[in-house]
Amino acid sequence: MKALVYHGPGKKAWEEKPKPAINEPTDAIIKILKTTICGTDLHIMKGDLPTVVAGRIIGHEGVGIIEEIGTEVDNFKKGDHVIISCITSCGKCEYCKKGMYSHCEKGGWILGNTIDGTQAEYVRIPYADNSLHPIPAGADEEALVMLSDILPTGFECGVLKAEVKPGDIIAIVGAGPIGMAALLTAQFFSPAEIIMIDVDDNRLKLAKTFGATHLINSAKEDVLKKIMSLTLKKGVDVAIEAVGLPATFEICQEIVGAGGHIANVGVHGKSVSLHMETLWSKNVTITTRLVDTVTTPMLFKNVQSGKLDPNKLITHHFKLDQIIEAYETFGNASKEKALKVILTN
Amino acid sequence: MKALVYHGPGKKAWEEKPKPAINEPTDAIIKILKTTICGTDLHIMKGDLPTVVAGRIIGHEGVGIIEEIGTEVDNFKKGDHVIISCITSCGKCEYCKKGMYSHCEKGGWILGNTIDGTQAEYVRIPYADNSLHPIPAGADEEALVMLSDILPTGFECGVLKAEVKPGDIIAIVGAGPIGMAALLTAQFFSPAEIIMIDVDDNRLKLAKTFGATHLINSAKEDVLKKIMSLTLKKGVDVAIEAVGLPATFEICQEIVGAGGHIANVGVHGKSVSLHMETLWSKNVTITTRLVDTVTTPMLFKNVQSGKLDPNKLITHHFKLDQIIEAYETFGNASKEKALKVILTN
Amino acid sequence: MKALVYHGPGKKAWEEKPKPAINEPTDAIIKILKTTICGTDLHIMKGDLPTVVAGRIIGHEGVGIIEEIGTEVDNFKKGDHVIISCITSCGKCEYCKKGMYSHCEKGGWILGNTIDGTQAEYVRIPYADNSLHPIPAGADEEALVMLSDILPTGFECGVLKAEVKPGDIIAIVGAGPIGMAALLTAQFFSPAEIIMIDVDDNRLKLAKTFGATHLINSAKEDVLKKIMSLTLKKGVDVAIEAVGLPATFEICQEIVGAGGHIANVGVHGKSVSLHMETLWSKNVTITTRLVDTVTTPMLFKNVQSGKLDPNKLITHHFKLDQIIEAYETFGNASKEKALKVILTN
Amino acid sequence: MKALVYHGPGKKAWEEKPKPAINEPTDAIIKILKTTICGTDLHIMKGDLPTVVAGRIIGHEGVGIIEEIGTEVDNFKKGDHVIISCITSCGKCEYCKKGMYSHCEKGGWILGNTIDGTQAEYVRIPYADNSLHPIPAGADEEALVMLSDILPTGFECGVLKAEVKPGDIIAIVGAGPIGMAALLTAQFFSPAEIIMIDVDDNRLKLAKTFGATHLINSAKEDVLKKIMSLTLKKGVDVAIEAVGLPATFEICQEIVGAGGHIANVGVHGKSVSLHMETLWSKNVTITTRLVDTVTTPMLFKNVQSGKLDPNKLITHHFKLDQIIEAYETFGNASKEKALKVILTN
Repeated sequence: MKALVYHGPGKKAWEEKPKPAINEPTDAIIKILKTTICGTDLHIMKGDLPTVVAGRIIGHEGVGIIEEIGTEVDNFKKGDHVIISCITSCGKCEYCKKGMYSHCEKGGWILGNTIDGTQAEYVRIPYADNSLHPIPAGADEEALVMLSDILPTGFECGVLKAEVKPGDIIAIVGAGPIGMAALLTAQFFSPAEIIMIDVDDNRLKLAKTFGATHLINSAKEDVLKKIMSLTLKKGVDVAIEAVGLPATFEICQEIVGAGGHIANVGVHGKSVSLHMETLWSKNVTITTRLVDTVTTPMLFKNVQSGKLDPNKLITHHFKLDQIIEAYETFGNASKEKALKVILTN
Repeated sequence: MKALVYHGPGKKAWEEKPKPAINEPTDAIIKILKTTICGTDLHIMKGDLPTVVAGRIIGHEGVGIIEEIGTEVDNFKKGDHVIISCITSCGKCEYCKKGMYSHCEKGGWILGNTIDGTQAEYVRIPYADNSLHPIPAGADEEALVMLSDILPTGFECGVLKAEVKPGDIIAIVGAGPIGMAALLTAQFFSPAEIIMIDVDDNRLKLAKTFGATHLINSAKEDVLKKIMSLTLKKGVDVAIEAVGLPATFEICQEIVGAGGHIANVGVHGKSVSLHMETLWSKNVTITTRLVDTVTTPMLFKNVQSGKLDPNKLITHHFKLDQIIEAYETFGNASKEKALKVILTN
Repeated sequence: MKALVYHGPGKKAWEEKPKPAINEPTDAIIKILKTTICGTDLHIMKGDLPTVVAGRIIGHEGVGIIEEIGTEVDNFKKGDHVIISCITSCGKCEYCKKGMYSHCEKGGWILGNTIDGTQAEYVRIPYADNSLHPIPAGADEEALVMLSDILPTGFECGVLKAEVKPGDIIAIVGAGPIGMAALLTAQFFSPAEIIMIDVDDNRLKLAKTFGATHLINSAKEDVLKKIMSLTLKKGVDVAIEAVGLPATFEICQEIVGAGGHIANVGVHGKSVSLHMETLWSKNVTITTRLVDTVTTPMLFKNVQSGKLDPNKLITHHFKLDQIIEAYETFGNASKEKALKVILTN
Repeated sequence: MKALVYHGPGKKAWEEKPKPAINEPTDAIIKILKTTICGTDLHIMKGDLPTVVAGRIIGHEGVGIIEEIGTEVDNFKKGDHVIISCITSCGKCEYCKKGMYSHCEKGGWILGNTIDGTQAEYVRIPYADNSLHPIPAGADEEALVMLSDILPTGFECGVLKAEVKPGDIIAIVGAGPIGMAALLTAQFFSPAEIIMIDVDDNRLKLAKTFGATHLINSAKEDVLKKIMSLTLKKGVDVAIEAVGLPATFEICQEIVGAGGHIANVGVHGKSVSLHMETLWSKNVTITTRLVDTVTTPMLFKNVQSGKLDPNKLITHHFKLDQIIEAYETFGNASKEKALKVILTN
């Protein structure tokens, strides 16, 4: 089969690899129908993730058809269409039993990381019963690719951790795919105002069409001043960090009000300065989380009922064998006005 | 001044009464701008509520202007426009400190019950700081009448108690004003499906325009069968009882699924049969509550931001001195296709 | 092997049965070390449970040694000592993923019900990874028999559902094994007062030594009057029903205060009268639940750290082959002053 | 009357001041019976708090008798014995209605800060109904001084914010009065293990008698190594920071496990380094809070029922006019083996 292979920092190729086979009776082999590229994949390609070794097939998102199934898989059969969760869950360890699948002792984020991933014609999924989700006939499978990672990430790490509630004024720092996923799913809880903060006017304009009520270009405007004016000097109820830089985390600390929440979603490479000299008495909650994909079944229900439209996040389409070109586009997201790209096999 | 006075079962009159005056430094006198009639007022008129004595001015909802203000009121001044909460809160007792204003040791539901109410040109509001809400200039005051009682009741007793959450399948039994208030505010939490159950096709049709996804006329259809079909035999996540009869409470017990919630909002006159022989193992939560109006500030924010449109509940308009006629209309709600009526002073 | 077999209403025998074998690779065969008898077993013996057919080996509690292990079991190996959970969990279905193991689509309460149980020399446990708990060397295995069912039941269905919190005044109706389990575990949350209600003075006296602060013999005293006196007429914060009769459920409704919880633990055979005519406005929460045994790992930690002593619940000891005699004793619990009996293989 | 007056950095005097009088009808004048000194008072004396001006009477804790009462105070009368809350709550503002009394728009921490405090023979308490708590006859008033600040602070900012639960392994960094208050009140939720970390062996020894299960002297031992050994390399469920320094906050970050909580109680003077490069995926919650004293009524119930013994925190006794000497002792807490001192008027 063909697959996208990482060959060390800056090197990747769409090349022939052996088709995966069942290793364990709890495995499934999936024929990929559609996959996508994640911001994390760009980091991998730069060599930022030491867990990813040369020779690895990349990718942790996608939908597909079950091609082959292990004898111990109960929930699925050959021919079923499925969503592949970016997080693999054994369903048996202490963490899985607590719903912390990202910390699964045998799984977690392993796809396209420590085992071969989904940017390929076929992929092997361990613990299939707990790591795949069924797709009924007639569902919009392209939309459902967004349930592999981006939507549960924005929702679980951003919206749920921040405890967004009706009437809240919330701010989302970063209007990339993750910030946009938080923007779409924050509306499940009907905050009164959603302030989107980014440096890219195009993305901010798009955020408006996704439901943002206020836009701030932090390269051009005084974020703190504008937020304090919007909140009658109280600060926001919720600040969602969807970038992963000290500067954007700093914004969150400045704008959060007494009793408020900072939910970090961004992947950070270095430590940040936490202003305990002012925060200590402010009744603030700061959270971190890697997505567990526990909410995928719920998100699926709201996609099916029309309460959530994942297609809003999809800006570009490619054939799977055009994946090198797709990486180019996604890697120049601002110039290309790209959010998520769909690769069809 | 003129006021609607209860004169014993079946007897009421729009008649001259003394204008109220400040009794306590924590009081405010409000000139009523707009008020409405509650289903409870109909019960009072029938003589169902022994706490309401002949001679009482009825009514516990409305917006108005502060005409006079006690010396100990800090949050308001003469001339302010305000929402009158149906629940009076002293802000100092054990229950108020816990947010259970309906159980306030000195207040609770007293307006138009144990003290004179709002269906009058003026009303005295005790503990004004904790029992009124400010209306900023330019707000839609007619819409805000719905924040006195009906919307917080549907939201607090129905939606919040039932813990409606994204992806849920919920059923609301009763499409009268309270059921409709639950329907509008349940959508704050983005349930996947909202099933509305009533015997009045007109109300059901209206519910559809308010956001219901499925309608069941319980006089014509087999509720249990239809619900089980819609829920793949699992039953609903949430059943909200918005009628107050044994038969409607029975429906809730039949349709609720394992792990589900029954939130009672209806006012019951007699006991119901609780099927513990099947429910004991079903992991079901049943709740009751009288509205506390703790969520009024939040509801106000979502009205202001356009997330909630209370005008949907308003079907008829009268002058305040047409109140006898308004009672006629509201008392024949089904025939008149009435939900809430607005009385303007 | 020898086992206790149900032969229809009123008939049971300690007799020879084939030793169980691995059916599925997720199974384990356990050699029973210690088991016990549950109140539910008495109901089975009377013929009250139609799911239990003649020929069934009874029992759903116990500790043992793994004798044989399926190829797909990861968490255990031959020779491991384990607690057998009364609830079998597949770990893969919708309900298991939500922690509602009692509603597991393939498991739930099946042991000694729809499959052979633990009152035998050996038992087959399906889905061993998710239905057994490891016992480290040196642990008090007799105490741990109480973690199979009775302690998680009292804790999950009573204490957790009722949301017992520091400072609460709680009442437990029924001082049998389940009520006593609730009494022991309610103290995890440090309620200010624990009122124990029963008709058996001996059990009440024992409850005092387990941490009850007030005792009421409902056969001799006016429960409502005494509770109202103890609570300054406010009623209790929590009432735990640990009997399963209309009369005891009635007591709970009478004594619960505004904002309070009624947590039902008792197994009911018929419907009860729910006094909605008074409860509708009282802000009361009523819950039901079958134990899920999700808290067994937590309970185990508190047993190991000395925060919980399950031995308090054990009143009698027998050899496993004396089980007919043990049933006699346990069936005459009041006369024999019995709570839980231990049967040692 | 006599009072302790702050005269600028390093200068204080026990001197004559005018006896306070009722300013507002919601005030009460309290004759102090017993008061104490807080760590914050030491900071004030050094000049660290710019809000405290020279001439201010210090102190925000104590119990007393109502000497005079404003006309609008309902809950108390002259002669009542009361606990003075360190936080003043108006009961009417947005924050008070949310239970965030520390952010009260007219109150908050003002006693011995922006208005005269309790280290005096008399003190004026604004908003008495919401800022005092009644003491019934026969209560241990000395113990109740600990309910003014230290116990609610340890409980609300440490234990509640950290969501301590049965079975948890928790660590408390700092065995001063605040850490000890967290230690005593954490036991309300029955954690399996409580690890106390400090540099003072005397305080650690005392912590053991208060319920700590493990002690670590961070000056002598490798905290991280010891914690990882105790937690099977998983880290603690809860780390409570009760010091207020970058180094102790650092310890908390190192030892917290996946899914864990860091609850900051310490007052910080500068920013700390937050290791987002490792924490981002760890599912960690970090909280800050100034005490709101919303739990004082609950703590009082558990003192009365014997579930909490505040006397454990009291190490020294003085007459109120020996307050300068008391400051000496409290200021040399380690040498004097002091936790809290009681000053009796």
